[in-house]
Amino acid sequence: MKKEGLLVVLSGPSGVGKGTICDHLLDKYSDLEYSISMTTRSPRAGEIHGEDYYFVSKSEFQEMIADDEFLEWAEVFGNYYGTPRKFVNSKLREGKSVVLEIDIQGALQVKQRCPNGVFIFLLPPSLDELHKRIRKRGTEQDKDMQTRLTAAKNEIKTVHQYDYAVVNNNIGDTADLIYSVIKAEKCSVSRVGQKLVKEVIDNE
Amino acid sequence: MKKEGLLVVLSGPSGVGKGTICDHLLDKYSDLEYSISMTTRSPRAGEIHGEDYYFVSKSEFQEMIADDEFLEWAEVFGNYYGTPRKFVNSKLREGKSVVLEIDIQGALQVKQRCPNGVFIFLLPPSLDELHKRIRKRGTEQDKDMQTRLTAAKNEIKTVHQYDYAVVNNNIGDTADLIYSVIKAEKCSVSRVGQKLVKEVIDNE
Repeated sequence: MKKEGLLVVLSGPSGVGKGTICDHLLDKYSDLEYSISMTTRSPRAGEIHGEDYYFVSKSEFQEMIADDEFLEWAEVFGNYYGTPRKFVNSKLREGKSVVLEIDIQGALQVKQRCPNGVFIFLLPPSLDELHKRIRKRGTEQDKDMQTRLTAAKNEIKTVHQYDYAVVNNNIGDTADLIYSVIKAEKCSVSRVGQKLVKEVIDNE
Repeated sequence: MKKEGLLVVLSGPSGVGKGTICDHLLDKYSDLEYSISMTTRSPRAGEIHGEDYYFVSKSEFQEMIADDEFLEWAEVFGNYYGTPRKFVNSKLREGKSVVLEIDIQGALQVKQRCPNGVFIFLLPPSLDELHKRIRKRGTEQDKDMQTRLTAAKNEIKTVHQYDYAVVNNNIGDTADLIYSVIKAEKCSVSRVGQKLVKEVIDNE
């Protein structure tokens, strides 16, 4: 029997390493897929429609909002970004698990529409370490840094809305731990119990 | 910070392979420990007190029952068998996870006393396969076999009282899957969320 995949939402404060962990996961485990976002911003050099993003017009995007076709969406500096349901659902039906790497606000939107997803919060080992990671990227001024750390602190307090909290100490271990969570969730009784009982007993 | 281990209860119908899976798990993962049962039956040749069982007298056992010192116990053909709380709790405090391999009735007793444990139900791929596995052991008459299969069918219907349902297709994969469940549970927000938030924020 074909098993449906899981929607795996990976979230956490900016700078914690969500993207790196996702890349590592997707490289290592072939039963996982990235969710591809849709945006109204223009493609940058080298970006491919349907790989990096789905690039659409504002009116198309707004129509899709009206039709409730997004798992989540947001407007950032005049551009829309969102996760179209359709792509995710078709992959799930194929038995792939879809990983959605997303900020806290987006994750909580997805949770309202897909309470069945697996919600994982990625934590830094400490705020100090998060500070270092953001500095290493070198994109922040000191003032912005304080704002980001305060934001991170508040975001971390939303962890109780997630199913799992994983400390990102080390890329390889963290990715493996997240994959363990996916494997475990696939045999949780609330997801598969009844179906399995039926299968075992009917296979007599 | 020292992390407390998990109580992992592995149950399922007789013949499904609980013992083999447990042995494999314990061999492979050094952070796991077996729970050692206590019994009033006499030691068999080669059995060692404190390794195979704790061998005690009936009056000692009954006193411990009166003091609610068992996670579960049962009387089988005039002998008592049980899981003493003390051993399990001291291992959990050391950070070891304790695996308890036990029949359905015992597992449900443990659940009443330790709702915090992780309850895993091991399923055969089919009742037919369970039949084959029991036959292979060659210990059952045909009449007893029917009784056992009917019992198994009824036991399988209790799966909704467990947290996870794992089909035992293959020893290595099943043991790894159970270890994934243990890893995942150790980062479930309901177990560690608040503690982790405190740690991350206090480590500033």
